Amino acid sequence: MKVAIIMGSDSDWGVMKSAVDTLKSFDVEISVTVASAHRTPDKVREFVTNSDAKIFIAAAGMAAHLAGVVASFTTKPVIGIPINSEPFKGLDALLSTVQMPGGVPVATMAVNGAKNAALFAVEILALADEELAKKLVVYRQKLVTEIALKEQKIQQSLQD
Amino acid sequence: MKVAIIMGSDSDWGVMKSAVDTLKSFDVEISVTVASAHRTPDKVREFVTNSDAKIFIAAAGMAAHLAGVVASFTTKPVIGIPINSEPFKGLDALLSTVQMPGGVPVATMAVNGAKNAALFAVEILALADEELAKKLVVYRQKLVTEIALKEQKIQQSLQD
Amino acid sequence: MKVAIIMGSDSDWGVMKSAVDTLKSFDVEISVTVASAHRTPDKVREFVTNSDAKIFIAAAGMAAHLAGVVASFTTKPVIGIPINSEPFKGLDALLSTVQMPGGVPVATMAVNGAKNAALFAVEILALADEELAKKLVVYRQKLVTEIALKEQKIQQSLQD
Amino acid sequence: MKVAIIMGSDSDWGVMKSAVDTLKSFDVEISVTVASAHRTPDKVREFVTNSDAKIFIAAAGMAAHLAGVVASFTTKPVIGIPINSEPFKGLDALLSTVQMPGGVPVATMAVNGAKNAALFAVEILALADEELAKKLVVYRQKLVTEIALKEQKIQQSLQD
Amino acid sequence: MKVAIIMGSDSDWGVMKSAVDTLKSFDVEISVTVASAHRTPDKVREFVTNSDAKIFIAAAGMAAHLAGVVASFTTKPVIGIPINSEPFKGLDALLSTVQMPGGVPVATMAVNGAKNAALFAVEILALADEELAKKLVVYRQKLVTEIALKEQKIQQSLQD
Amino acid sequence: MKVAIIMGSDSDWGVMKSAVDTLKSFDVEISVTVASAHRTPDKVREFVTNSDAKIFIAAAGMAAHLAGVVASFTTKPVIGIPINSEPFKGLDALLSTVQMPGGVPVATMAVNGAKNAALFAVEILALADEELAKKLVVYRQKLVTEIALKEQKIQQSLQD
Amino acid sequence: MKVAIIMGSDSDWGVMKSAVDTLKSFDVEISVTVASAHRTPDKVREFVTNSDAKIFIAAAGMAAHLAGVVASFTTKPVIGIPINSEPFKGLDALLSTVQMPGGVPVATMAVNGAKNAALFAVEILALADEELAKKLVVYRQKLVTEIALKEQKIQQSLQD
Amino acid sequence: MKVAIIMGSDSDWGVMKSAVDTLKSFDVEISVTVASAHRTPDKVREFVTNSDAKIFIAAAGMAAHLAGVVASFTTKPVIGIPINSEPFKGLDALLSTVQMPGGVPVATMAVNGAKNAALFAVEILALADEELAKKLVVYRQKLVTEIALKEQKIQQSLQD
Repeated sequence: MKVAIIMGSDSDWGVMKSAVDTLKSFDVEISVTVASAHRTPDKVREFVTNSDAKIFIAAAGMAAHLAGVVASFTTKPVIGIPINSEPFKGLDALLSTVQMPGGVPVATMAVNGAKNAALFAVEILALADEELAKKLVVYRQKLVTEIALKEQKIQQSLQD
Repeated sequence: MKVAIIMGSDSDWGVMKSAVDTLKSFDVEISVTVASAHRTPDKVREFVTNSDAKIFIAAAGMAAHLAGVVASFTTKPVIGIPINSEPFKGLDALLSTVQMPGGVPVATMAVNGAKNAALFAVEILALADEELAKKLVVYRQKLVTEIALKEQKIQQSLQD
Repeated sequence: MKVAIIMGSDSDWGVMKSAVDTLKSFDVEISVTVASAHRTPDKVREFVTNSDAKIFIAAAGMAAHLAGVVASFTTKPVIGIPINSEPFKGLDALLSTVQMPGGVPVATMAVNGAKNAALFAVEILALADEELAKKLVVYRQKLVTEIALKEQKIQQSLQD
Repeated sequence: MKVAIIMGSDSDWGVMKSAVDTLKSFDVEISVTVASAHRTPDKVREFVTNSDAKIFIAAAGMAAHLAGVVASFTTKPVIGIPINSEPFKGLDALLSTVQMPGGVPVATMAVNGAKNAALFAVEILALADEELAKKLVVYRQKLVTEIALKEQKIQQSLQD
Repeated sequence: MKVAIIMGSDSDWGVMKSAVDTLKSFDVEISVTVASAHRTPDKVREFVTNSDAKIFIAAAGMAAHLAGVVASFTTKPVIGIPINSEPFKGLDALLSTVQMPGGVPVATMAVNGAKNAALFAVEILALADEELAKKLVVYRQKLVTEIALKEQKIQQSLQD
Repeated sequence: MKVAIIMGSDSDWGVMKSAVDTLKSFDVEISVTVASAHRTPDKVREFVTNSDAKIFIAAAGMAAHLAGVVASFTTKPVIGIPINSEPFKGLDALLSTVQMPGGVPVATMAVNGAKNAALFAVEILALADEELAKKLVVYRQKLVTEIALKEQKIQQSLQD
Repeated sequence: MKVAIIMGSDSDWGVMKSAVDTLKSFDVEISVTVASAHRTPDKVREFVTNSDAKIFIAAAGMAAHLAGVVASFTTKPVIGIPINSEPFKGLDALLSTVQMPGGVPVATMAVNGAKNAALFAVEILALADEELAKKLVVYRQKLVTEIALKEQKIQQSLQD
Repeated sequence: MKVAIIMGSDSDWGVMKSAVDTLKSFDVEISVTVASAHRTPDKVREFVTNSDAKIFIAAAGMAAHLAGVVASFTTKPVIGIPINSEPFKGLDALLSTVQMPGGVPVATMAVNGAKNAALFAVEILALADEELAKKLVVYRQKLVTEIALKEQKIQQSLQD
């Protein structure tokens, strides 16, 4: 198993599904776990210390301690996703995730940046997997095409 | 032992000393531990689960997960002190400490509010200790006297 | 009477009901009062100075002075709940509640953190009530079970 | 006595002296009181309810409840000055002072805006005092002259 | 004419109507003007310099310069109301209104605090009008009654 | 005269000197004026309406209304520089300068961005002045050389 | 071609259409391009370096690098529009656009300030085009009339 | 060459040296480049597209576009370090670095988090290098020892 996705609450699933979908589209093996740094600390510790995942993606909102707690139990790369929630719109989750003290890094993505967390995990795995590396190049080329198509539509509407 | 003080780094000691001094001035038994949620997660867990403290006071800066992690291992009252540090002046620590999800409370004090954390712990202990309750009333009366003296000085300088 | 709940406005009732429900689920005796630090200062003072409550829970929005004013009249533990309101989403209420000066502590919960205020009050009362202490442990275990069930659902949807 | 200045702490005196000086330069009668909304609530209430002041100026830092508490005891105009203090640089004091709920107004000045608080009090008193009204016009004309002199210096340095 | 209300845009009318209604309920004479500091600077200047108003209330959103510009043309009391608008929810308008430099004060109310602006204007006028002063006392007493009624409803629902 | 620099206070001169120096290094004709939107509104209006400047650069701190007020009197390009001042570090000045309502634009630079204001003015003038356009290209090339030199120093220190 | 509009995503079109409409109403020649600083960096570079536009208007949300990247490839005036998007409501885009380092200026408009970006471009072009300069004066006069009409409606509703 | 460090300005060197030192202490091969997204866009593009680095670490302050621009030219992992600078203390750099749109990820560290950027790069490289993986475990153990020593000192001072 390559990438372990952990989320602090099932309410994060709406956002996190795009990480799952993106990783699957690259044929990366994943696992999905719901575990809270505060409500199930033992589950988090046991899951992380026993996991054979190469990369952890952890998502949480508010006082988002999950990614930091996961990182405290492993020296594998941990990617953190701050989740947008009321009332502070993810500013609390962003600062709780990114402002890690020296010694225990968490690679933080944008608020709700689940897709980019998945892509970053793929970028890491691609360092040792040429197939994946090629897929990433193709993925970027698709972004270029998509934008060209979007521009066409706007050009069209300008001429109408 | 009644109140356990845990701080995430020895650099917090400058701020936390006033919590120690305040608790000692009320003759409350204390212990002091340095333990980081991220660098020594096992020490935090073992300390909290084995402690016979009635109240925990946890202080940390930046992505301040310590109070939340302590609270995840106990149903005793946990008081959190966000520590002021560069560059975000404790806003990161405040949000990381106070924005706990439902189920696992942390009683948060002002940024660097070590003295008030100690006083709040005394207020809790005083519920079952009349002596302590009386001392708190005396403490508040002293605040009134102090302010009267401060006003005198200003009145004096106004007349000069 | 054990826990006195005071709110600054009846519009806070939607949020505060969960504090009432949580305290009732632990069979804790409560009272509920509507009193504003600004519109009914005398009512707040008389209520607090005459109350036999062991713990006060005070909720207010905007320039949320209520918890601080309650704390100015008692040395019993005061728990503050900043209420989310437009336009500043509770940031004003959070800073107004948590940034208390040294001498008069208010234990601050998350914005709209009514459930955690109730749980924290129970944690304090449980220090002198073993029954309550056991209920808290059971409560935490239920959180673990809930999360396991939530994960099951997601695992299910992943396999579908 | 016309304008009562209340400050929450003698540490505010450095800022508040300019309010005193400005009011004195307009020959407005003043009183100065140190009283804290949290540490000396009775002093605040007794002072305000017994005062014959026409206008109150209240200054406080952090969770700055003083102006709001003063306003709760009087229907005379209350002017609030948020005081700049670490770590939040007066943002906490500003929001705590300005975000008053409907019914009890506080006229808020800039953070540390002691001079403007004094000038605003003079503007109110000048509505019923033509002498004062004239002095205000002269004061504004002095501002114009000052700026002309400041510009001269810069023009000079540009030609050097 | 006693109180002049100026707003930067007719879109502020929804908020400002409560200032008009409050002033009318105190039988205070008013005028209402729409004038923008940026789009109609001459109208603002001419209106303010020719007005016989005793007090100006100015409301604007975003880079809310209106109250400051009004204050630059008069030594009469100017009350500023920052208007809540997207995307910064009135934080821009609050800082633009309250952070006036020394010499030219603006008395700032809460974001959208139109009712309090009106009440504050009445408090100023009441200094020279005993009738008005009595009405303000009655107004405050009504607030007390309203809160008592609100509490009753909640007490009722608790017993149901 | 081509570029008119206006600043709200002579205390802004420390920052604004770099705008003057930059414009002089491009041999652009300038004037420098000290005029405050609040303390000298008539001077601002008269200066702007009578000026033959092609571009205005306006700098102010706190509730920085100057650029907006200048823009209200001209349809020439107005460039605004928010000045960093205590306690809000230019956030108040930035929002007061940039959040202009539709109809009256102000081109806002970074807080204390005096050099870039000057460069942007040069970019505008260069549209009709090929000499100036060439100087801008040379200026950019110098930036490239400067960075190369800076890198050399670091490479050196790495090898030592 | 005179003004080139570039936007980072077609989702910005809703906001940017008002820039197009405003420029067209002044009969200014425009082009519209969709190009992302991150997804299509080569397209941005090639477009800017090959363009004969006199002015660039660049709009982007979140980590809004587009205007800065455009400015890195040209010494023509670049106007930046931060786009409002969830969760940070354009604060991220504003700071990413306005806080440019010395040497490479971007003239920043309000969040979603597309209309003002267009007007500012017209103000620049009008320096060398008297026709356009006259149209700008007419445009401002229309703003005055519009506000007079808006006031009439409110005056009407006050008398009803 | 394994890890390429790029910084936007030589003034970032004070912070970035700790990334260099950390990577060297793990015997990881590095290169150091000074290149600005705005002042030397061609240097950035050429460096990144020609580099054989496995991982890029990019550091920049203010409108920190560097990491995003680097990421636009590579599908290798890019780690971003927002640099603390006046006046916004790195909040501008943090949001400019972390709020990347979907498709092009940047792994963001704390403001000035150079040491953690280096450690995170090591964690990635350690996935394919057991030696490095062991060193990381040793590194974490040293953190535990360091904290034990820090605690000893405080315990000592408590007994004195």
